[in-house]
Amino acid sequence: MSRSSWRSDADPFAFLVARGPVAELTSATSWLQTMLDVEAAIAAAQAATGEIPGEAAATIAAACRVERIDVVAVEASAEQGGVPVIGLVEQLRIAVGSTAAEFVHRGATSQDIVDTAAMAITTRAAAVVGEQLTDAARSVDELAGAYGAAPMIGRTLGQFALPTTFAGVAGRWRRGLGEASAALGDLGASLPVQLGGPVGDAASYGARAADVAAGVAERLRLAVPDGPWSSVRTPIARIAGAWGMVGTVVGDVATQLVALMASDVGELSEGADGAGGSSSMAHKRNPVAAIAARAAAMQLPGLIATLLHAAAGHDFERATGSWHAEWPALNTMLRAGGSAVDWLATSLERVVVDVDRMAANLKVAEAARRR
Amino acid sequence: MSRSSWRSDADPFAFLVARGPVAELTSATSWLQTMLDVEAAIAAAQAATGEIPGEAAATIAAACRVERIDVVAVEASAEQGGVPVIGLVEQLRIAVGSTAAEFVHRGATSQDIVDTAAMAITTRAAAVVGEQLTDAARSVDELAGAYGAAPMIGRTLGQFALPTTFAGVAGRWRRGLGEASAALGDLGASLPVQLGGPVGDAASYGARAADVAAGVAERLRLAVPDGPWSSVRTPIARIAGAWGMVGTVVGDVATQLVALMASDVGELSEGADGAGGSSSMAHKRNPVAAIAARAAAMQLPGLIATLLHAAAGHDFERATGSWHAEWPALNTMLRAGGSAVDWLATSLERVVVDVDRMAANLKVAEAARRR
Amino acid sequence: MSRSSWRSDADPFAFLVARGPVAELTSATSWLQTMLDVEAAIAAAQAATGEIPGEAAATIAAACRVERIDVVAVEASAEQGGVPVIGLVEQLRIAVGSTAAEFVHRGATSQDIVDTAAMAITTRAAAVVGEQLTDAARSVDELAGAYGAAPMIGRTLGQFALPTTFAGVAGRWRRGLGEASAALGDLGASLPVQLGGPVGDAASYGARAADVAAGVAERLRLAVPDGPWSSVRTPIARIAGAWGMVGTVVGDVATQLVALMASDVGELSEGADGAGGSSSMAHKRNPVAAIAARAAAMQLPGLIATLLHAAAGHDFERATGSWHAEWPALNTMLRAGGSAVDWLATSLERVVVDVDRMAANLKVAEAARRR
Amino acid sequence: MSRSSWRSDADPFAFLVARGPVAELTSATSWLQTMLDVEAAIAAAQAATGEIPGEAAATIAAACRVERIDVVAVEASAEQGGVPVIGLVEQLRIAVGSTAAEFVHRGATSQDIVDTAAMAITTRAAAVVGEQLTDAARSVDELAGAYGAAPMIGRTLGQFALPTTFAGVAGRWRRGLGEASAALGDLGASLPVQLGGPVGDAASYGARAADVAAGVAERLRLAVPDGPWSSVRTPIARIAGAWGMVGTVVGDVATQLVALMASDVGELSEGADGAGGSSSMAHKRNPVAAIAARAAAMQLPGLIATLLHAAAGHDFERATGSWHAEWPALNTMLRAGGSAVDWLATSLERVVVDVDRMAANLKVAEAARRR
Repeated sequence: MSRSSWRSDADPFAFLVARGPVAELTSATSWLQTMLDVEAAIAAAQAATGEIPGEAAATIAAACRVERIDVVAVEASAEQGGVPVIGLVEQLRIAVGSTAAEFVHRGATSQDIVDTAAMAITTRAAAVVGEQLTDAARSVDELAGAYGAAPMIGRTLGQFALPTTFAGVAGRWRRGLGEASAALGDLGASLPVQLGGPVGDAASYGARAADVAAGVAERLRLAVPDGPWSSVRTPIARIAGAWGMVGTVVGDVATQLVALMASDVGELSEGADGAGGSSSMAHKRNPVAAIAARAAAMQLPGLIATLLHAAAGHDFERATGSWHAEWPALNTMLRAGGSAVDWLATSLERVVVDVDRMAANLKVAEAARRR
Repeated sequence: MSRSSWRSDADPFAFLVARGPVAELTSATSWLQTMLDVEAAIAAAQAATGEIPGEAAATIAAACRVERIDVVAVEASAEQGGVPVIGLVEQLRIAVGSTAAEFVHRGATSQDIVDTAAMAITTRAAAVVGEQLTDAARSVDELAGAYGAAPMIGRTLGQFALPTTFAGVAGRWRRGLGEASAALGDLGASLPVQLGGPVGDAASYGARAADVAAGVAERLRLAVPDGPWSSVRTPIARIAGAWGMVGTVVGDVATQLVALMASDVGELSEGADGAGGSSSMAHKRNPVAAIAARAAAMQLPGLIATLLHAAAGHDFERATGSWHAEWPALNTMLRAGGSAVDWLATSLERVVVDVDRMAANLKVAEAARRR
Repeated sequence: MSRSSWRSDADPFAFLVARGPVAELTSATSWLQTMLDVEAAIAAAQAATGEIPGEAAATIAAACRVERIDVVAVEASAEQGGVPVIGLVEQLRIAVGSTAAEFVHRGATSQDIVDTAAMAITTRAAAVVGEQLTDAARSVDELAGAYGAAPMIGRTLGQFALPTTFAGVAGRWRRGLGEASAALGDLGASLPVQLGGPVGDAASYGARAADVAAGVAERLRLAVPDGPWSSVRTPIARIAGAWGMVGTVVGDVATQLVALMASDVGELSEGADGAGGSSSMAHKRNPVAAIAARAAAMQLPGLIATLLHAAAGHDFERATGSWHAEWPALNTMLRAGGSAVDWLATSLERVVVDVDRMAANLKVAEAARRR
Repeated sequence: MSRSSWRSDADPFAFLVARGPVAELTSATSWLQTMLDVEAAIAAAQAATGEIPGEAAATIAAACRVERIDVVAVEASAEQGGVPVIGLVEQLRIAVGSTAAEFVHRGATSQDIVDTAAMAITTRAAAVVGEQLTDAARSVDELAGAYGAAPMIGRTLGQFALPTTFAGVAGRWRRGLGEASAALGDLGASLPVQLGGPVGDAASYGARAADVAAGVAERLRLAVPDGPWSSVRTPIARIAGAWGMVGTVVGDVATQLVALMASDVGELSEGADGAGGSSSMAHKRNPVAAIAARAAAMQLPGLIATLLHAAAGHDFERATGSWHAEWPALNTMLRAGGSAVDWLATSLERVVVDVDRMAANLKVAEAARRR
């Protein structure tokens, strides 16, 4: 049997940086469906305020399914126009049919659709990754419950320092995972819809623009902002901040797992069957999941820098490149962060604690100290 | 008259990236004094819990003044040991005198002092910069009050789009500045003391470690953490997030100021006397403050990446480089962010609105649209 | 007609950051085939030095086709082991059959395969992108030939400065594109094979390790290094440097295109049919390709930071995460850089110069100067 | 004795990131003197081509000493105008006196002075740091000469792998240091003067602009570019690339030193007297210099990202912020890179090799392998 397809031919390293549920949330299909959800929510909110007929909104809602849209045409349009929305709206109007077509995307602009979809996708990613962090914290709780009292040598600047217990290590991990999870919870509760219209003043949505915004937010479970943020990108900065917290916690815990799993230390190991082999050395057992968690987490600071650089350079009412630059950086960052957490949770599930080795190392350290 | 001293010989570009009150908060003198404040607070809290004599704490408090310390010796020690605390404690013990010397730095470790000082300095910087953002927001309110109704052409992707008013522009700025200020407020209320002791388990502080932590936090107006965060750096990530918000808002507002102040647009200008000249063209009037705000804000994403990279790589109980790497990145980031806000506030104070030019440009845009 | 497939479901923004020939060079299929090419080259070089039978090398060469390998099994293995080589070697041994299987991957380690493949892919990408930069330079030459003498106002710090000609602008672009192309040429001629074996000392390749390295290099058109660079990552730094040059030049030229194409300036435009429309404003003509070039180029500094950070953190003989972290950053960087050049070349092909507008703006600027 | 001055009050962490000779090269005094050198070189070159009287050039040369300039006035001007050159030229004209004043800064613009000074300072930094890398390489050669044959266990992914010798480790370090030194040599030989004049077309330098450029380059030992690069920043990208190489090599070697110096490994140590103590644990011996080298090197990727991001965003003939943003990032990067090399050279000088521990660890590893 021979097949020539990788999970995604476009991403040879998906196994490393697109593991876990966030990968699907951030796929092209997910983005297209979410943008359609935004179009449907706008139509529904406008029907509720009486701006468009309820029947039109229902027709639009029914058409807002990615299966009903010619996505190849949408992509071709994106390759021409540099944005996926123009083609999406064209294809949605075709799917909707002639009667309701005029009510599609009413008052809206490309940025409203992309920005609001980005907030919806990020909110979902925050929920999913937050749960994974909670799972990881539970694994740490279990380890701490079973082995917290085990004495071990503390190490600072790489040197034997003073005795401590595994509870000290696990406690720091636990608090960090809890804080990261909480940061994602706060994020998920705060991301706002964008309904600025063509020039970011919401005027195109008419006198009841605020009600439309509230209606869209309710339907998509997003927050209602005080007004458009089309060219002052505070939600992007907030996302970067929360994902930076995720990367920091995963990076630290994974770095410490890797350190404690080193052969020279040997106090922890990843006890998975089948994983961690070597192409040249059959006897080796590598802490693969912790290493992969580190590698995935290391993607974040640079992506966050890109996202912040882009978010900070918006000119006039819609930016000449900075807005577009946010998209791939955001999407890749969400994926890498989610993947890092997934690998970390995997490593924590696999952890085997060697209290004898802890005791032995402690003895060595104490002997060295007395010398 | 001729002098050969720049404000700081070590920072030729301080005029750009170390303007405003944050520069002083982040000086060596401020760091040394703040680290002494931490030592004093620890002693006071330990006196309150009965761990050390009250008299010793009073003697220590009196000695914890940078003027009483041989800072040259401290620096020499830092150049040897790679950390400023060892020499600081030595010199503090000398200043305290023989009786109380044994009560100095009791249970503490270098990291407790540096980390807690970093939190105190950042908290103060957040307060000061938050106020400056509020000042900037007030300038925007004034501009919006005076000129909000002025019609102008909205521009998206650099192209004339649809008419809007200056209120749309100013409203986005206003909300962004408000959010950044709020983010700094949240940050300032959340940064915790670090009292982990030599191996990050707080054991060295004894049975009443939690009370000591609470006492130190109260004295320094910092938060009490659930436990040490010495090797899982969530507060650093939170600082990076908030400063990322500051950089985003300053960057966007300054970019839009610069765009509206371009000769080809001319709808705004910086009306300062004496500023904005050219070394080769006497007729030019450059929007110096807005440009400097952009330049200062552009420093942030890279520094944030450094800070997050460092914060995510802590091994064992104290890191082999990642901890040290945080210090200069944090300090430079605080300065650049504060400087960016200072320059932005300056630019906003100087703004002159040309409603006639807005009207004229709008007419040109409308004519182009009808073609 | 309705299809539900994007070019790549894993990359919703491929239209922006994976345009042009580099996308295919950096696909999973390309990586797998290139890793197989490395295995074949090692076997061939070892046959030439007499280490393995020539027949075995021929059998291996014939099996080193991605179509003959069960790539699904390889990916499953990568998801377990965190590296694609273990599964690849297993599947290659199956494809080779029992007689020659023992000669597959002889003396080699995962890192030799991934690192050498990375060098081969980057070398090809450098060649392709170098050509595209040359194409772009040719477009600039044509524009300069036709319009170089056109007078225009020079603008500094956004302000009208002094008159210049379009030749000044085009000359700076031309030199930059030439330098970037030359930098890629230098890079392509310098990237070395990696043949370090399991612990980076080349000992596993035997007494004729240097000849094997030379043979592999010749077959893959790569350079011969002075020795393994498995844990001191100079070639990665060199790649980052060259791609940084590409991003700088594309960013600057694209930024200037966008600036000259702004409605308020109007001296250039993108004259493509069908491209540059708006979802809400039918009259608009956006400089889509220049904007997309900026957005793609903006991805590079952050990715370069990730790559350099990873490249600088290798511990012992093979790193605990830093090596893995290089892969996605490198691949995404190659794609984004190639895409940026592709978009820029597209924009430059589309450029329409409006010498009348240049003259009119110059007149306005001269009038303003006399005031 | 008590003094209240740190080496630089503006840089509390200078001991970490501004160690060694680059600190002085990048001081405000050095920048001012170098900018004056550029003014003198322009005048001298213009005298040589007959554009200005030789006597005026001599008068200017004599005045171009930082001691003769009111630098406080220059700084005040920079705080107003956002650039140090306007005030510098004013003060230089005062120092020169009325007769020659008109020949000061002739045809030049601020950017010519700052950019050319930046190239001169970087060229000097490259020379100095290149020598330090050569010193470091010499230390490695000595270590390899004395201990290269020592058997030790190779470690990959943190795990015991196969036996190797210290020669393998040292060889990789040696080659990396050599390549980094060579990269700085190439850089130092390539950095060009900038003589673009007010709008980057060199027109202001008259018919013999090319001769003036050549004359300035010769006097400052810089390269002659094909033309101005004022808005397409290839030399900045080249500097970033070379410093990225420095950071990569220092980071890797220092990371490996730290790893081999860990208590659990103990094969190397820093044998300095007086350094490496602890504020809480008298028995500890920390590998301070290697840790500081890591921390300093970790500053580079983020600073490089800032520099590249700034370098890639130049609009029109002189940028609205991106140019200014380069200065502090460049200067801080030069300092941190130089400091990293200085710390690394210090660590390598201090290295003590423990061949017995290598042998003992190897025995442990071999035993583990047979299990």
